[in-house]
Amino acid sequence: MTGQRQDPIQSAVENWRIAGWGDAASGMALVTSIMRAQQLLSAEVEGRLRPHGLSFARFELLRLLAFSKKGMLPMGVVGRRLQVHPASVTSAVVRLERDGHVSRRRSTTDGRMVLVAIEDSGRTVVDAATNDLNEVFRSIPLMPAEIESVYDALRSFRATAGDFDLEDPDGST
Amino acid sequence: MTGQRQDPIQSAVENWRIAGWGDAASGMALVTSIMRAQQLLSAEVEGRLRPHGLSFARFELLRLLAFSKKGMLPMGVVGRRLQVHPASVTSAVVRLERDGHVSRRRSTTDGRMVLVAIEDSGRTVVDAATNDLNEVFRSIPLMPAEIESVYDALRSFRATAGDFDLEDPDGST
Repeated sequence: MTGQRQDPIQSAVENWRIAGWGDAASGMALVTSIMRAQQLLSAEVEGRLRPHGLSFARFELLRLLAFSKKGMLPMGVVGRRLQVHPASVTSAVVRLERDGHVSRRRSTTDGRMVLVAIEDSGRTVVDAATNDLNEVFRSIPLMPAEIESVYDALRSFRATAGDFDLEDPDGST
Repeated sequence: MTGQRQDPIQSAVENWRIAGWGDAASGMALVTSIMRAQQLLSAEVEGRLRPHGLSFARFELLRLLAFSKKGMLPMGVVGRRLQVHPASVTSAVVRLERDGHVSRRRSTTDGRMVLVAIEDSGRTVVDAATNDLNEVFRSIPLMPAEIESVYDALRSFRATAGDFDLEDPDGST
């Protein structure tokens, strides 16, 4: 992707104002910026994961299992924690199982519940991949205060979208 | 997607710190937040565009052409302004042409240059789609100051990634 003098999103903001949509311009700029930042970050993250044979979705799944106490979780819990559809969890698990990084088993206490467990090979690959991704995470070209203000605003946005319950600031409920 | 008590990204931050990766935790939280915000926004935007038979990529292409002075631009300029690969431009144009919203023609001054032009049906559909998207853009559940600080930080990030040249603050170059 070649650089260019003008910021295309800033140009869009000016076009929006000229068209008489000034009251929607900052929201348009925000949405478009987030989509563009996601593209740039996703390309970098997926590039770092490719040598490990992982996508970001499969990395997140292995990382979650590696952090879990018993190294295994019910499929439904994985979907809720990663905020992805059950079909996406299944598709990631099938691929990770094929690569020998996880295995599926029935719960011994509830035969209807399917558990996914991380294998030694999964732990090895996810630790190596985490080292590489942490290099990306440490070198975000923004000041700590900028990172914090973006994170805080997006956290409030995610809460409003229903991703989780914000704690009551009074602690009264 | 069902809500849940705990913020999964905040849980990941805690896991990152416990694992000894505290110096990478805020970057991980930022990247993961941007990816999640993009998913939520993309679902909303694509949902609003679907009744118009448009994806966000095709909407952006029609919007760019509608804003252009002559209602037509060279394919290469479209790719640079939308920051997408030439193959993605072609694929969007082929679909829009099939729907009667754009047409391709050779430049009369440079026979090697292919121009894409918006048709009346393209102008009608993109204006209706813009009205619907502007409702989304006006109702982002964040304070104006939050929107501005996220936009400013992501603008700096996009500039560092090479999307455009930041103006020299001294105006000396």
